[in-house]
Amino acid sequence: MGLLSPVRAGSAVEAATGDTAFVQAMLDAEAALARVVAPAGVAEAVAGAAHVELYDVRDLALRARSGGNPVIPLVTDLTAAVAYTDGEAAPYVHRGATSQDIVDTATMLVAARALPLIVADLDRTATELARLAAAHRDTPMPGRTLTQHAVPTTFGLKAAGWRALVLDARDRLAALRPPAQLGGAAGTLAAFGAGAELLARFAEATGLAEPDLPWHTLRTPVADLGCALAFTVGALGKVAADVLVLSRTEIGEVAEGAGGGSSAMPHKSNPVRATLMAAAARQAPQLAATLLGALAAEDERPGGAWHAEWQPLRELLRLAGGSARDAAELTSGLKVFPERMADHLRLTGGLIVSERIAAELAGVVGRARAKELLTEASRRVAEGGVGLAEALAGALPPDRLRELTDPGTYVGSAPALVDRALGRDA
Amino acid sequence: MGLLSPVRAGSAVEAATGDTAFVQAMLDAEAALARVVAPAGVAEAVAGAAHVELYDVRDLALRARSGGNPVIPLVTDLTAAVAYTDGEAAPYVHRGATSQDIVDTATMLVAARALPLIVADLDRTATELARLAAAHRDTPMPGRTLTQHAVPTTFGLKAAGWRALVLDARDRLAALRPPAQLGGAAGTLAAFGAGAELLARFAEATGLAEPDLPWHTLRTPVADLGCALAFTVGALGKVAADVLVLSRTEIGEVAEGAGGGSSAMPHKSNPVRATLMAAAARQAPQLAATLLGALAAEDERPGGAWHAEWQPLRELLRLAGGSARDAAELTSGLKVFPERMADHLRLTGGLIVSERIAAELAGVVGRARAKELLTEASRRVAEGGVGLAEALAGALPPDRLRELTDPGTYVGSAPALVDRALGRDA
Amino acid sequence: MGLLSPVRAGSAVEAATGDTAFVQAMLDAEAALARVVAPAGVAEAVAGAAHVELYDVRDLALRARSGGNPVIPLVTDLTAAVAYTDGEAAPYVHRGATSQDIVDTATMLVAARALPLIVADLDRTATELARLAAAHRDTPMPGRTLTQHAVPTTFGLKAAGWRALVLDARDRLAALRPPAQLGGAAGTLAAFGAGAELLARFAEATGLAEPDLPWHTLRTPVADLGCALAFTVGALGKVAADVLVLSRTEIGEVAEGAGGGSSAMPHKSNPVRATLMAAAARQAPQLAATLLGALAAEDERPGGAWHAEWQPLRELLRLAGGSARDAAELTSGLKVFPERMADHLRLTGGLIVSERIAAELAGVVGRARAKELLTEASRRVAEGGVGLAEALAGALPPDRLRELTDPGTYVGSAPALVDRALGRDA
Amino acid sequence: MGLLSPVRAGSAVEAATGDTAFVQAMLDAEAALARVVAPAGVAEAVAGAAHVELYDVRDLALRARSGGNPVIPLVTDLTAAVAYTDGEAAPYVHRGATSQDIVDTATMLVAARALPLIVADLDRTATELARLAAAHRDTPMPGRTLTQHAVPTTFGLKAAGWRALVLDARDRLAALRPPAQLGGAAGTLAAFGAGAELLARFAEATGLAEPDLPWHTLRTPVADLGCALAFTVGALGKVAADVLVLSRTEIGEVAEGAGGGSSAMPHKSNPVRATLMAAAARQAPQLAATLLGALAAEDERPGGAWHAEWQPLRELLRLAGGSARDAAELTSGLKVFPERMADHLRLTGGLIVSERIAAELAGVVGRARAKELLTEASRRVAEGGVGLAEALAGALPPDRLRELTDPGTYVGSAPALVDRALGRDA
Repeated sequence: MGLLSPVRAGSAVEAATGDTAFVQAMLDAEAALARVVAPAGVAEAVAGAAHVELYDVRDLALRARSGGNPVIPLVTDLTAAVAYTDGEAAPYVHRGATSQDIVDTATMLVAARALPLIVADLDRTATELARLAAAHRDTPMPGRTLTQHAVPTTFGLKAAGWRALVLDARDRLAALRPPAQLGGAAGTLAAFGAGAELLARFAEATGLAEPDLPWHTLRTPVADLGCALAFTVGALGKVAADVLVLSRTEIGEVAEGAGGGSSAMPHKSNPVRATLMAAAARQAPQLAATLLGALAAEDERPGGAWHAEWQPLRELLRLAGGSARDAAELTSGLKVFPERMADHLRLTGGLIVSERIAAELAGVVGRARAKELLTEASRRVAEGGVGLAEALAGALPPDRLRELTDPGTYVGSAPALVDRALGRDA
Repeated sequence: MGLLSPVRAGSAVEAATGDTAFVQAMLDAEAALARVVAPAGVAEAVAGAAHVELYDVRDLALRARSGGNPVIPLVTDLTAAVAYTDGEAAPYVHRGATSQDIVDTATMLVAARALPLIVADLDRTATELARLAAAHRDTPMPGRTLTQHAVPTTFGLKAAGWRALVLDARDRLAALRPPAQLGGAAGTLAAFGAGAELLARFAEATGLAEPDLPWHTLRTPVADLGCALAFTVGALGKVAADVLVLSRTEIGEVAEGAGGGSSAMPHKSNPVRATLMAAAARQAPQLAATLLGALAAEDERPGGAWHAEWQPLRELLRLAGGSARDAAELTSGLKVFPERMADHLRLTGGLIVSERIAAELAGVVGRARAKELLTEASRRVAEGGVGLAEALAGALPPDRLRELTDPGTYVGSAPALVDRALGRDA
Repeated sequence: MGLLSPVRAGSAVEAATGDTAFVQAMLDAEAALARVVAPAGVAEAVAGAAHVELYDVRDLALRARSGGNPVIPLVTDLTAAVAYTDGEAAPYVHRGATSQDIVDTATMLVAARALPLIVADLDRTATELARLAAAHRDTPMPGRTLTQHAVPTTFGLKAAGWRALVLDARDRLAALRPPAQLGGAAGTLAAFGAGAELLARFAEATGLAEPDLPWHTLRTPVADLGCALAFTVGALGKVAADVLVLSRTEIGEVAEGAGGGSSAMPHKSNPVRATLMAAAARQAPQLAATLLGALAAEDERPGGAWHAEWQPLRELLRLAGGSARDAAELTSGLKVFPERMADHLRLTGGLIVSERIAAELAGVVGRARAKELLTEASRRVAEGGVGLAEALAGALPPDRLRELTDPGTYVGSAPALVDRALGRDA
Repeated sequence: MGLLSPVRAGSAVEAATGDTAFVQAMLDAEAALARVVAPAGVAEAVAGAAHVELYDVRDLALRARSGGNPVIPLVTDLTAAVAYTDGEAAPYVHRGATSQDIVDTATMLVAARALPLIVADLDRTATELARLAAAHRDTPMPGRTLTQHAVPTTFGLKAAGWRALVLDARDRLAALRPPAQLGGAAGTLAAFGAGAELLARFAEATGLAEPDLPWHTLRTPVADLGCALAFTVGALGKVAADVLVLSRTEIGEVAEGAGGGSSAMPHKSNPVRATLMAAAARQAPQLAATLLGALAAEDERPGGAWHAEWQPLRELLRLAGGSARDAAELTSGLKVFPERMADHLRLTGGLIVSERIAAELAGVVGRARAKELLTEASRRVAEGGVGLAEALAGALPPDRLRELTDPGTYVGSAPALVDRALGRDA
């Protein structure tokens, strides 16, 4: 019921990937099959029985144990349901197919239905990030490396970077073309008594892409899904990682619009969306690894590698769907505090622009002497009580020093990079 | 509902780890807390309301989203339920605790309840394997390395090896002592106004082990569970790997008692239990990796690492529970075919004992010459139509050659190793 | 030295990814930088010093510890080397850049140099597989599912499937466009005093692709490499998995051209290439997971996520390079034994075509009765001593039964699927 | 040469796990074997040749390719070396053993030699942490949850928690008893012509633990090593995660004694030790997953699972060794700034103790009204310009309010928990 996975509880993707949705997708696969291998009347009868409401999903799950997959009991029940309305049609149910044809096609149908939901939330997120990047194109803030202030950047560049990752994820998901699966018992289509053209007809009936070959043990579609979904969750994990840092009590440069409460402390406003996205990003890579590992599948259907894909792939869809929903919420409500950023730029007494000073000084006194002067000045600044301009007094003209030690004017090409990044179509 | 995870569908561990069981465990944690921090009457009132049937689990899951964990809505509902019977008691609900105290304690309660179920199935499995090892202590079969016949072994030694792994898993699970969690908002116990002794009292009230320290970000208990569970699933994966090989149509040295059917082929009897165990073994290591990764958790409660544990740990419990159930079924029903093993020992025309011949020949003609003779003889045998004894005719006395090329007499210490292994207490 | 990684020992990719190659790539990055930020004479001086032979790689590795990356000591040594020939040029070394600019650019240079080596071996492999698929387009063999004979297929279809995966891998690798990295201390290009156009100029100087943005913490290029490489190793792992099965002593339908020897058994010929490819396929997914996990990198340079990429990415390049080399060797030398395949088709006494009989019988006596007849006949066949045609005597005309129970005529669309697959350009 | 792994470059564990050390360990295994299976004179001759300096390690690595492991060429070379001094002894080299006996024994020797080095650094680290915990037993600092100030804790409790994890790691490593491996071609000891007692004699000759059974495909020792090492790296990753947070420019509550420099910015002092430890913690879990996955190994020696262990296990030893070295350095030099901690406790204007106020107020005006008052007061404090005591003026007596809003007096049982934790023997 999602109790231990708040990232996806109640999301559209959760519903689209549930056991009920999966059984419906299996029924859709069987109905599509009937359309291409059976007389028209039969196809209608199967279609008429292909409604998940007519089946007991938990019972199917339990009966799946003996054969190791849910198709065997489902075919029994579907055949009975078809027989109820059309006795002639019943023998055509599942004709020529193997369990994997139905499970794989259903899996791809589920993916094909979930992916647009995820893409839509990524698009919403990208739109919000474009807005933030434009609004803060020139808002200076500390650039941080290895946790330390490095040189200034702008919040717009940070947001534009987030957007670039979100678009990368969107592009990877949108490029996926989940294929239908049809091969029969060992992938030769033998029992259909039809040629390889059947692949195109079945694919069309399902609305999925046409495969080159039956892919029972050629798992490119699953590996591709795994990588694209884990990439998505990871890309959003970058956004989360930054929001978590910038939300820290001592930093407070951003805040989630609606932070989460605490069961113990009335004052707390936690970055909950970012927390859940970060939690998803810690789980997704290993799930993708399981899918990549399943490529090494022996024979025409393997003893384990195929079954090992089912849960991890669904879980990845849910983590990506949940994380994308959270990202859309987070970015639409994100509060940004430029004045905190400005405060922090002053925190190091000017050291945050030491790189600029070093370059200027080097031009005047040579690189080696410049380094000496700066090292000594930095030491004094770090000890406190004196800013870099003061510590370097005499080394450069006072006005020039003041100018050079103003962090807000040392953001380099950050604004231009924002423009460049926003030029990429969403 | 378990549709995509037949390994655990309908198992006792599935029920013990479900959302309903988890909410009950959270309620048990709250009741235990009331017992140690509130007056006796209050504790009774809380205990009276601590029944999962009184709560809407799905609704809790949905409301968990805003704060990122299910404790916040649960405390609201529990407080209301307590207030309904005892208005004075309500303010004591959850007093001094933080969400993580309740979630972690509940997780450990769920684990502590699931582990004995898994251990029991491992014990059943070990008993069956002891029986198989004893029965086949001396049953010769081909030892296989890198897929090729190497030298003979006995099926008893293989079963004894399986049992050794199962006992290793059992020992690792049985040694776990899941601790209670109590620390309050930042792990200092401050809000309880009691000393560190509270840890012992709370642990006792829950039936869990007493922790040394609040372990909000000292995740040894979770990492230990992850490793022991993944070890268990992996150990059973070894049994499955062997059963899958030995069940192959061309090999047929063992068969599952009740193989699984096929939706397409009436004759098939698939090693389904082994397949599901193998599938579990492909998933568990990566879930353990996620838990090991969560050790690196910043602060007094991390933004992501903690939340990332919930689903993987539950999934590991379920994979271990399901795989152990399947192992008990598989081993209790396993059919062994010694005559097939004997047939296969003859398959290489005596090459399977070439090691023994090499040693004997070396004693007679020197190591180098022995190798030459054997290499040439092996080549002839591999080409077919002649056995090793024939190919080496003249190199050793005929009787001795016959004796040496009988694979059944070259099992070395296999029977003695079986005895040794069975000496280990289950 | 590769002792524990025979899959890559001595390969071209090993050399292209070694520490020496990496230092050369860092020097190439510095030289390219000098070309775009310094006067022409300076660039020449830097280029003149940018030869790895001039540096002590182990010493750089040791000195890398204090700052956490090898650029800091390298810049020191490179500056000294430049100063030796041109004192004026020395201050320009590394000007404006940050360590990550150099390490990331070097990593992408190393990848860009290794990828064509891998692609070439995949191409060789695909060519060999096209040959095998064409040659065995119609060679019948048992299709196997869950380790059991299912229905016949052809070896050509199996080889065509392998080729499809190899081409999928090749396409994914060939589509990669590793970008140069340049951003300066926090990715704003500030210290260069040049605009964003510098990205294009630097990229051109390195021969790498131009990035949209500095990607210090936008790790799409690394994640893409990780996925494509792990996909490659996994795809080759499928080939290995099948070769390992088909090479088994009891099966012997294929053999590696030059199997590996044994330290103990003179007769053994192990499928060593497949073993090493299978071993690689067990390692690669988890390495890719580490790279996907590194997407969640905080700030403008993270404290750990970046450093965590270095070894896993190199190891992935090596596993892919080694596995592709082994695949080319394996497929070029693979021996195929059609007569063993034919023998095995007879192994189940006709049960391997029970699917076909079931369909025919159903047309005659109805689906339910057909199933009964077949189940009973299958039971008798499984007990031994009688073939399916015999067991079903009377149910269908003898000639028809003989025809239907000939496995070699039940390969369905396998040959047509081979043609279809070979139509895909290599 | 360690260029891409500064965490371990130049460490004692790096040397103890290198290819040279591994070849020496293989030679030690062969020498031990000779001691138990050959006449005394032979054993001396083998021992005399068992020095890695006599062999070309790179050449062994290259020749390992054909058979897939380094033992085959090593035995050739060792035999030649022995023959050089004692022609009679040569035929005894490697007698009865299989490659895996030597590789596994060597792996365990390498582990057994590396583990004490790691344990020693963990012990040093624990000692430093005990010192820090005791010194800062009462030093108040903000407890942080989900990145936000929660309630106060003490730095001593944080250090005591780190130490608890370090001791957990130490205990897990110290409990390992790497066993010798001996089984011969298929684990039956057949070629030795000795009984199972040989296991004890060989183990004694190697200095390793005696195994219950040959464990060629019973990989408990490898899985245990993998889990304990990944646990160690993860435990140190917790220390690193905290140090990275607390070192942030805005926080600055701790600093590494000798921070790392930057190639671009003269002022930077990066938490490099913590960065490298954090990077290790991102890699180790997935390497452990590969080892756990290798439990599912078919037959008496698997085609891939065994070979897949070699590099990951060595890499884990190196990450653990490097991280432990860094931890010892980091903790011995860590600078702690109590005054920064005190500053931060005031940062929320008293909200950090709102939990305490809530409890007190509830006793006066009831829980519901208390919550209202605090929520309103918290809102005003968050808006700035007013502290919590002021915002609640009138709700409680001024003196009491002042007392209650002093964060330094609300550390609960933190000091007592420190004492408790330090009571655990190192």
